[in-house]
Amino acid sequence: MVSQPVQAARLPPSAADIAAAFDGARIMVTGGMGLIGSALAERLVGLGADVLIVDCLLPDSGGNPFNIADIRERVTVAQTDIRDAGRMRELLAGCRYVFNLAGQTSHLVSMLEPLEDLDINCRAQLTLLEGCRAECPDAVLVYAGTRQIYGSPRTLPVDESHPLHPVDVNGVNKMAAEAYHILYHEVYGLKASALRLTNTYGPRMRIKDARQTFVGVWLRALLEGRAFEVWGGEQLRDFTYVDDAVDAFLYAAIVPETHGRVFNIGGDPPVSLLALADMLIAAQGDGRYEIRAFPADRKRIDIGDYHADDRLFRAVTGWQPKVRLREGLERSLAYFRTHFAHYV
Amino acid sequence: MVSQPVQAARLPPSAADIAAAFDGARIMVTGGMGLIGSALAERLVGLGADVLIVDCLLPDSGGNPFNIADIRERVTVAQTDIRDAGRMRELLAGCRYVFNLAGQTSHLVSMLEPLEDLDINCRAQLTLLEGCRAECPDAVLVYAGTRQIYGSPRTLPVDESHPLHPVDVNGVNKMAAEAYHILYHEVYGLKASALRLTNTYGPRMRIKDARQTFVGVWLRALLEGRAFEVWGGEQLRDFTYVDDAVDAFLYAAIVPETHGRVFNIGGDPPVSLLALADMLIAAQGDGRYEIRAFPADRKRIDIGDYHADDRLFRAVTGWQPKVRLREGLERSLAYFRTHFAHYV
Repeated sequence: MVSQPVQAARLPPSAADIAAAFDGARIMVTGGMGLIGSALAERLVGLGADVLIVDCLLPDSGGNPFNIADIRERVTVAQTDIRDAGRMRELLAGCRYVFNLAGQTSHLVSMLEPLEDLDINCRAQLTLLEGCRAECPDAVLVYAGTRQIYGSPRTLPVDESHPLHPVDVNGVNKMAAEAYHILYHEVYGLKASALRLTNTYGPRMRIKDARQTFVGVWLRALLEGRAFEVWGGEQLRDFTYVDDAVDAFLYAAIVPETHGRVFNIGGDPPVSLLALADMLIAAQGDGRYEIRAFPADRKRIDIGDYHADDRLFRAVTGWQPKVRLREGLERSLAYFRTHFAHYV
Repeated sequence: MVSQPVQAARLPPSAADIAAAFDGARIMVTGGMGLIGSALAERLVGLGADVLIVDCLLPDSGGNPFNIADIRERVTVAQTDIRDAGRMRELLAGCRYVFNLAGQTSHLVSMLEPLEDLDINCRAQLTLLEGCRAECPDAVLVYAGTRQIYGSPRTLPVDESHPLHPVDVNGVNKMAAEAYHILYHEVYGLKASALRLTNTYGPRMRIKDARQTFVGVWLRALLEGRAFEVWGGEQLRDFTYVDDAVDAFLYAAIVPETHGRVFNIGGDPPVSLLALADMLIAAQGDGRYEIRAFPADRKRIDIGDYHADDRLFRAVTGWQPKVRLREGLERSLAYFRTHFAHYV
């Protein structure tokens, strides 16, 4: 595969650029009650945007009404399933930006209910793009893709030219949805781009179970004074703090050179799961974990080590992560200590 | 991307191997009234197989009841839409082989009716795989993929490690469907493989319009004494004669080393469209064509030159094409001279 040249770094958009782009603009955030969506909505509200949150609060997703409690009076909320094509078209009319983060995120659920995963992560995405063509063809779209579509890395770090080899139904559907976005740019000129996210974490994440990321159940156990389980432990992973992910979405929306392209989003240098576990316990000041062999039903869809080469996105947009892993974990713990009851 | 090593060539399966594999076996052929499906069904009937043809005769597809007129009394026909999950599960029970060729094949139609294309080429394929898991988990599956998923080739010839970059909705959906097949091998052990077909042609192809391949409308015009249109003309393409495609499906089903893998299928060395036009006229002994600029609505989904590197499949299965392009065109013309009325 042809490697994409890494361009010389540029300066990130200025605060003035960001304000000018979003102030007064009608902006749809699908999955807007989830981890990233709610943080993005909050940021956009602060920038003066007219934010429309779309979220149907699927039981297995990251959506939680409490996530937008602080901005509830300053946004419009449509508790709409993105599978509802007619309603989505009404909502898309007049939007200048669409941050498309709605999805079924659980890899395990996608294997148990593959057709439902397809309807949410693939069919509804195509419907949304058809809606954008019809209702807001000049809007900028940023799609929340996933590193899961690479499968088990053949080389590390993984750049965007790494072959795609999804290891679960979720990965296939997310791969197709990303491809629709790029296709609709190429064929119809929609200003769409896609960010291939790695583990994103932070305040407001789902901690009830591991349907969003395993970090959620670790946090929960720690806060409840229980040991958490580390499956395996040597696997390397990278992590993006939610505020850095929000920056990435805003920059992708503002910088026109992103249109029609896909980008990895990473963060700090990768750490092993054991190192992460130790860091989390240090951040909490207390706690313990148990090391377990990988459960069989997870093992077959696990990808081993992963870390992103995200130099392309840094070069094109000037993005760089600002929150170190240790600090992000501390902020997450502090948040959930206060708001724990809303998340379990 | 990591290139796949080309293995030393092996001998193709013997006639005895082929007979032993299929004699008496219950075999489903989806899209069984189409160009390849009907030829495959006919071959299997000759081998003593218990063939179940599934075809819903979508108006835009290659299915034609006349294609199976000669074997109609020796096969079971289910005029079932592969989107009908319940009926498909009943039909899959007891199948030892599933040749999965059903699909919406028109690139242009996929852009006009993207969600219907998704339901046929993506959702129904996932449903079929779920059905196989439940009803015939030991069956061998061969999926008819397409070279369309590569998009515009970055290098020629195109081998299986070439990046995937579909240029139409059909390509995205076929890419996802192929990935489901490979995934279901990796996760559930289904004996599935996929063949990425290039232009396949021959007796029984759709000639009513260009929904299956442009060669169809060329043949029709020639047989009606009209000039056919060559769009562009310099583009290089390769062609597989239908009987060679049938061999490829049979070999893929028999050779266990194919399981979980994808293979390009090519044919003779590539020719330009102009050379093909000249060869077709020579085969007919008469005729004419007009060279036209590429129509705008097609141009944006055209892929330029393409020819397959199919050495991997030749090495793994011993397959090689037997029918030269000129001979294949002559056979096709001879067939349609006799049966023209059934195809227009």
